[in-house]
Amino acid sequence: MKISVKVPATTANIGPGFDCLGMALPLYNTITIEETVLPGTGIEINVMQDSDSDNVLSLEHIPMDENSIIYKAVELLYNSIGQTPSELKITVHSHIPIARGFGSSAAVIVGGLLAANELLGRPADEVALLSIATEVEGHPDNVTPAIVGGLVLSSLEDDGTVIYRKLDWPDEWQITLCIPDYELATDIARSVLPKEVPMADAIFNAQRMGMFVQAVNTKDEELMRLALHDKLHQPYRMKLVPGFDKIMENLKHEESVLGCVLSGAGPSILIISKKNALDKIHSIVKETWAYLNVKAEVLTLPVEKQGAQIIKQDN
Amino acid sequence: MKISVKVPATTANIGPGFDCLGMALPLYNTITIEETVLPGTGIEINVMQDSDSDNVLSLEHIPMDENSIIYKAVELLYNSIGQTPSELKITVHSHIPIARGFGSSAAVIVGGLLAANELLGRPADEVALLSIATEVEGHPDNVTPAIVGGLVLSSLEDDGTVIYRKLDWPDEWQITLCIPDYELATDIARSVLPKEVPMADAIFNAQRMGMFVQAVNTKDEELMRLALHDKLHQPYRMKLVPGFDKIMENLKHEESVLGCVLSGAGPSILIISKKNALDKIHSIVKETWAYLNVKAEVLTLPVEKQGAQIIKQDN
Repeated sequence: MKISVKVPATTANIGPGFDCLGMALPLYNTITIEETVLPGTGIEINVMQDSDSDNVLSLEHIPMDENSIIYKAVELLYNSIGQTPSELKITVHSHIPIARGFGSSAAVIVGGLLAANELLGRPADEVALLSIATEVEGHPDNVTPAIVGGLVLSSLEDDGTVIYRKLDWPDEWQITLCIPDYELATDIARSVLPKEVPMADAIFNAQRMGMFVQAVNTKDEELMRLALHDKLHQPYRMKLVPGFDKIMENLKHEESVLGCVLSGAGPSILIISKKNALDKIHSIVKETWAYLNVKAEVLTLPVEKQGAQIIKQDN
Repeated sequence: MKISVKVPATTANIGPGFDCLGMALPLYNTITIEETVLPGTGIEINVMQDSDSDNVLSLEHIPMDENSIIYKAVELLYNSIGQTPSELKITVHSHIPIARGFGSSAAVIVGGLLAANELLGRPADEVALLSIATEVEGHPDNVTPAIVGGLVLSSLEDDGTVIYRKLDWPDEWQITLCIPDYELATDIARSVLPKEVPMADAIFNAQRMGMFVQAVNTKDEELMRLALHDKLHQPYRMKLVPGFDKIMENLKHEESVLGCVLSGAGPSILIISKKNALDKIHSIVKETWAYLNVKAEVLTLPVEKQGAQIIKQDN
């Protein structure tokens, strides 16, 4: 049996929602798991980079051995039903930029997990899949939208359960991704964060998070403009993302721009704007990158409302 | 001219919303300002305790001199139009328990301010009134619902402006106040808070705040149950509020209870529950207070949807 799963990219944090907000985007990885016929062949994992995204992808950073995150996810699922995976060929077709803040690791975890679950006859329900994926990834904010799609508020509870709710992203608000050609590994981006933060900053982010959820529920542009600020992670990561401050500065006076935030831990930047002046935004961003001598892609995308999907199943 | 303003009590914080959530409750103070006829009489401030609330009120804590918070608020308003207040008689009829976590200081600030504004021919609009009241009170979470009513998410921006949005509290959710007979001054309750908090606690509260706003918008009981937790202020204030941990513990298994939080800085406790089993909740709470040998009032109230109102105007 051979099963393929198509998993969307995700952007997490989105301003105030550090470690709790995430959103699926229409860029995809496809993960295929095949039972190999020859016993003793073990687990083979191959990652293919798709040619159309040559300019921003580099794939050396997905570990190819059995210790890889894909393998870990698949193994945890097998273990949960008292089995051990073997004789599997796992293939990843990768379109999601790696180490750029678009949940490429969440996508392969989720893809591996869902394909293996299908192969095993769906022993795990959504709750179990979310829980395993979060265990491998460390936090639920990318894996949850990768599984369920859309804009998602999620949390990992003390008992290991992931609680999530989908929020309705207003169609009127556009998301523009700025993807620079340098990478930033999540573990480096995490290492610059302090263990403690000022109480005032904690209060600030809780306020903004309340504003964000209210703004999305009521399509309130003025409130969204205030909500898209963060004091918990972005200030510390600013120095790891050359250009972020400059892009924020240059977009500050654009009436159509509601906010400018890091995608995940960066280095990609998310610009949230009203559905006008898109050309203006693109040209400001491109000029800024050019001025900084950074090669970058700039693309405007809708939210991907669907989560991971089984796209092929050969018996 | 003599003007009276009726101002509701308020409860702030409400779990995760430390310094940003507040809600008006149907208990009121009435603040009357009268221009006295004799020049040179200065400012006279009188506070009357209403007899029906003898058991929980003590009024020594409202300073009666011109330095009082009422006077400060009135003075700031006069100053904003280049005047100085004089020849005023200010009377407070107080029904709101003092130093119990129900915004009694916010109520007198707001009442004084609104009455003076009326007396002066309304020079200040809502934005200006919110800004002055917040300057006197120090934070906007009580004064905002005292002025506008209902459940309010508010923030004090860097430029001194207060931004707020009203949220629709579901009618299905009841609020039970537990008011013990001991006081807790807000400055003491603030003094136990740390200047820095663990990053994990900051993330926790931001998540819960997002959950709170989503739960209120969608009347989601399961989510509200998760949302009504806090790691920024309640854990530090626990020791100042004997009985809080015990009441939480004793209500833990009540299916109808969605949460149990401090009202403001305490010592009063707010129980949020579905509209059933109210007798059960009252009896558990009363038994707990009795066991702890604390005299307390327990009352269930709706949200007051209206803010401060001018109730009498004699020319």
